[in-house]
Amino acid sequence: MADASGSFREHSIAEFFKKNRQMLGFSGKVRSLTTLVHEFVTNSLDACEEAGILPDILVQIEQHPDGHVVLTIEDNGPGLPKKLVAKALGQMLAGTKFHRFMQQRGQQGIGASGAVMYSQITTGKPVYFKTGLGDGKAYEGELSIDFKANKPIVANDRDVEENYRGLKVVAIFGDVKYDRSEYSPFEYVKRTALANPHAQIRFIEPTGERVLFPRASELVPGRPAEIQPHPLGITVHDLLEYAGATQEKKLSVFLVNAFSRFSQGKAAEVKSEYAKIVKERDSEALETDAEDAAERVMGLAPRALKWEEAERLVESFKRLKWVAPETDALRPIGPEQVEKALKNIFNPEFTSVTERRPKVFRGGIPFMVEAAIAYGGNSGCRKADGGTSGVIMRFANRVPLLFDAGGCAITSAVKGMDWKRYDIRDFDNEPVSVFVNLVSVHVPYTGAGKQAISDEEEVVEEVRLAVMDAARRMQLFLHGRLRERNREVKKKAILRYIPQFAQDLVSLSGKGNAKKLQERLTSIVESKYSQLTLGEAEEEADASANCAPEKPGGKAGKAENGNGEDEEE
Amino acid sequence: MADASGSFREHSIAEFFKKNRQMLGFSGKVRSLTTLVHEFVTNSLDACEEAGILPDILVQIEQHPDGHVVLTIEDNGPGLPKKLVAKALGQMLAGTKFHRFMQQRGQQGIGASGAVMYSQITTGKPVYFKTGLGDGKAYEGELSIDFKANKPIVANDRDVEENYRGLKVVAIFGDVKYDRSEYSPFEYVKRTALANPHAQIRFIEPTGERVLFPRASELVPGRPAEIQPHPLGITVHDLLEYAGATQEKKLSVFLVNAFSRFSQGKAAEVKSEYAKIVKERDSEALETDAEDAAERVMGLAPRALKWEEAERLVESFKRLKWVAPETDALRPIGPEQVEKALKNIFNPEFTSVTERRPKVFRGGIPFMVEAAIAYGGNSGCRKADGGTSGVIMRFANRVPLLFDAGGCAITSAVKGMDWKRYDIRDFDNEPVSVFVNLVSVHVPYTGAGKQAISDEEEVVEEVRLAVMDAARRMQLFLHGRLRERNREVKKKAILRYIPQFAQDLVSLSGKGNAKKLQERLTSIVESKYSQLTLGEAEEEADASANCAPEKPGGKAGKAENGNGEDEEE
Repeated sequence: MADASGSFREHSIAEFFKKNRQMLGFSGKVRSLTTLVHEFVTNSLDACEEAGILPDILVQIEQHPDGHVVLTIEDNGPGLPKKLVAKALGQMLAGTKFHRFMQQRGQQGIGASGAVMYSQITTGKPVYFKTGLGDGKAYEGELSIDFKANKPIVANDRDVEENYRGLKVVAIFGDVKYDRSEYSPFEYVKRTALANPHAQIRFIEPTGERVLFPRASELVPGRPAEIQPHPLGITVHDLLEYAGATQEKKLSVFLVNAFSRFSQGKAAEVKSEYAKIVKERDSEALETDAEDAAERVMGLAPRALKWEEAERLVESFKRLKWVAPETDALRPIGPEQVEKALKNIFNPEFTSVTERRPKVFRGGIPFMVEAAIAYGGNSGCRKADGGTSGVIMRFANRVPLLFDAGGCAITSAVKGMDWKRYDIRDFDNEPVSVFVNLVSVHVPYTGAGKQAISDEEEVVEEVRLAVMDAARRMQLFLHGRLRERNREVKKKAILRYIPQFAQDLVSLSGKGNAKKLQERLTSIVESKYSQLTLGEAEEEADASANCAPEKPGGKAGKAENGNGEDEEE
Repeated sequence: MADASGSFREHSIAEFFKKNRQMLGFSGKVRSLTTLVHEFVTNSLDACEEAGILPDILVQIEQHPDGHVVLTIEDNGPGLPKKLVAKALGQMLAGTKFHRFMQQRGQQGIGASGAVMYSQITTGKPVYFKTGLGDGKAYEGELSIDFKANKPIVANDRDVEENYRGLKVVAIFGDVKYDRSEYSPFEYVKRTALANPHAQIRFIEPTGERVLFPRASELVPGRPAEIQPHPLGITVHDLLEYAGATQEKKLSVFLVNAFSRFSQGKAAEVKSEYAKIVKERDSEALETDAEDAAERVMGLAPRALKWEEAERLVESFKRLKWVAPETDALRPIGPEQVEKALKNIFNPEFTSVTERRPKVFRGGIPFMVEAAIAYGGNSGCRKADGGTSGVIMRFANRVPLLFDAGGCAITSAVKGMDWKRYDIRDFDNEPVSVFVNLVSVHVPYTGAGKQAISDEEEVVEEVRLAVMDAARRMQLFLHGRLRERNREVKKKAILRYIPQFAQDLVSLSGKGNAKKLQERLTSIVESKYSQLTLGEAEEEADASANCAPEKPGGKAGKAENGNGEDEEE
């Protein structure tokens, strides 16, 4: 094995992603360009949101004759501090976002440096940047990455006397291609505008065509709050890590201060639950011994906590009831905004929006799901054969997910629904657009390319419930429309007989005025057949739904997601 | 922005994967356990192969009453050197495999440390290891990871006077579950045995049941060779990186020595192509100037090479014809072994195996595809409704890929085929197993979990061609079988009339012996209807295939892969 030790080496994360660029979304020329736009645009939106600024973003794509593409992204955000800009854009896993428990688009500190990497390995060119806070002192320069060390290299940098506010990045890339397909930067920006009505995005295509996605709402979204982890779902390892890092002297105090929804009362409940667990695991133990053990643990210095003790604590958390995590940490788009956006884009016959209450998944991570359905109009997606197919528009923290649909929990949840129940005979052949936005302080992506959400049981379930709820209202509409049509047909048929009937009646009875009778009869029929109210339709639909109610949780992406994910517990 | 700088931090790759464990395949309890088995078994197979040892591997899974699972993996390989074992198992991105251009199962230096990480975050326990070369000096200890630093921590380690050869690892995990489903460690080991007939694997289930997957071949696979990169597909950035690291003094010598298939003659061709490119890009340039520029570049010190020059060099590589990369770097399983394995497992009516010639994809990476089809017998996969569905068994360098089928290039290539052409009316309703093994010095996985292959155009195309080839032979069989059945029906119908016919003939003509005539006629019919030869069937099938030949490359996973990958030039 002496030979092996000769070639034994340690590698940097930058080298890893350079070799495995497809993991960051750099596979295929169109997808690569969309990934680049995505990384910079999400950073801009995050920065503006945190600073409480209404975003105004320029995305310009220019085609060079040699095949290279120049991408310019400029925002009106707070810029990056001079001493951090190089690391933020040119060092992987460096940044402010990684350890924060806070809803944000970026979360890994890889995206922007991945883009700088891509410029470097496809054209050998550094990336130009300019940053400023609007205080008269801007800073610009050129950036590249030392892959072996995973460190940024800055060149030609200088301070600029200019009242510039925002961040501007200009980069040149090879191995990319611009088009307007459904996986293109154009579609990406369009969907970003949909989910971010407070942003204005100016988009300039290689042809020079300018497309403005105007701001639809002047409402600055609330600044996302940084929150404490929720006791439900926290792992033993996490608890020990937090306990090891705290300044608190006593475990019970640490618990109350470090975790969300952890009151003094809860600490007492945890203590008595802890005692019960000790007793259960050791049937020989006296009740008083178990109580003493619990008392002792709650008084420990947090960093003295041992694995077995932490394990019992986590177990006791799981057995107790907790208030759901703080809602104010989560910033949904909001039902009105979603509805407005869908109406703008699809001009549908019907829309229905659902916003679910916040829930928690693995690790005490709060999340919530917004879902909407648009039906008719320009909903769905035109197929090659001229038909219309249902379409699923996936978002995570308002970021559109265009790729890897097949491996995404949202897709499997939506596709796994029994659409026939909602009068959608065949999802792939109906003018229907399903919109889902997963809002969370930590989105469980399946990969570093951040395009698909992993099959977390609670997430899949919430997506299903949200879409089912929206679908139920759509079904009322479809059902009502069908009934309305049937009535219309019947009414017309009856109306056709009225003139003859009126005449016959008059001639048979020898009394009355045929014209007046006809008018009278017509008005009776008209009023009879316009009594269809929403209430009636609802009643009818409810009745039919009650015959065989769909079991929630019945088929949430289990065997059906085709993904090999197992979901137990 | 001062506040942001306060929380600005650099993070280790270990922290990254701890937070994003689903990216390593740790999502779902069954899948997590399979991932753990996978990581250790692939390491064992790689180690044995490199040392030329026939692998003998023990995989034992024990269930603790508290829900934790103990996993023991032991091999008879060369072990790990004392000074490297901790880093190899407990530091991410450290190892010998990362930068080698060589066919191996592991390639990232993440897998084993990911497993150690998972033990630590689910049970807080370190992992026991024991290693030895069989020279009387073994070494054992306990290992965990310092996540913040991405460094191994060794405890309780000691030298052991024992003639131990191999590597043994014992680890205890939470958040895992054992079953025998199609995504389980059991299925994983079964498929591993299929693709590694030279390995013996002993598998002990939590129930104590022992399953032996015996060695089917005593043939040690050739030691995989480390190769030089092939000029086709190399990127400009790669070329500059190699040029910067070489000891050579002259570019032309460097090219010949650093790249595969690069002869002196090729260097001359590159030079003249380079001159042509200079001339094309600058129509003002004199022919002699262009030639001088080419001459100058080929004489450069490699580290003086500039981006533009390297770009022209790479362009000239692409325009020239090259011998395919060395075949001996690739170690397919081999048609006989694949066929033997399929027959063992499925007991099929028919098998057909194809081995394609090596090709190159991005970055001068040689690869080849082995494909096989088994039809009938126990092929395919039993469905809940009692029917049988076609199944795709994916492998990369003999490693079974059980998860993320939806996002894998092999799936999209196989599913994208027009199976009706091959007399498979509906792939999801036929007893057919499609086996595909991608053999390469670098497998382009879509994620660090290494379960799906990204849509590299050349790879998708080769998979399609290989499976189409195997399918064509299966179709001959199916076609022949159908014809045979038709003949049988006809023969029976005719035979039924012979007794009557013979009697009538005799009574009509008044001559001969009815019994003898009947025997004679029967033998004529029998011989006439057993003349169906493979040649005939082949002719017929060819004729029908020629009517509308399937265009290769026609629909390789384009719009159809549902994955949003775009595949252009």
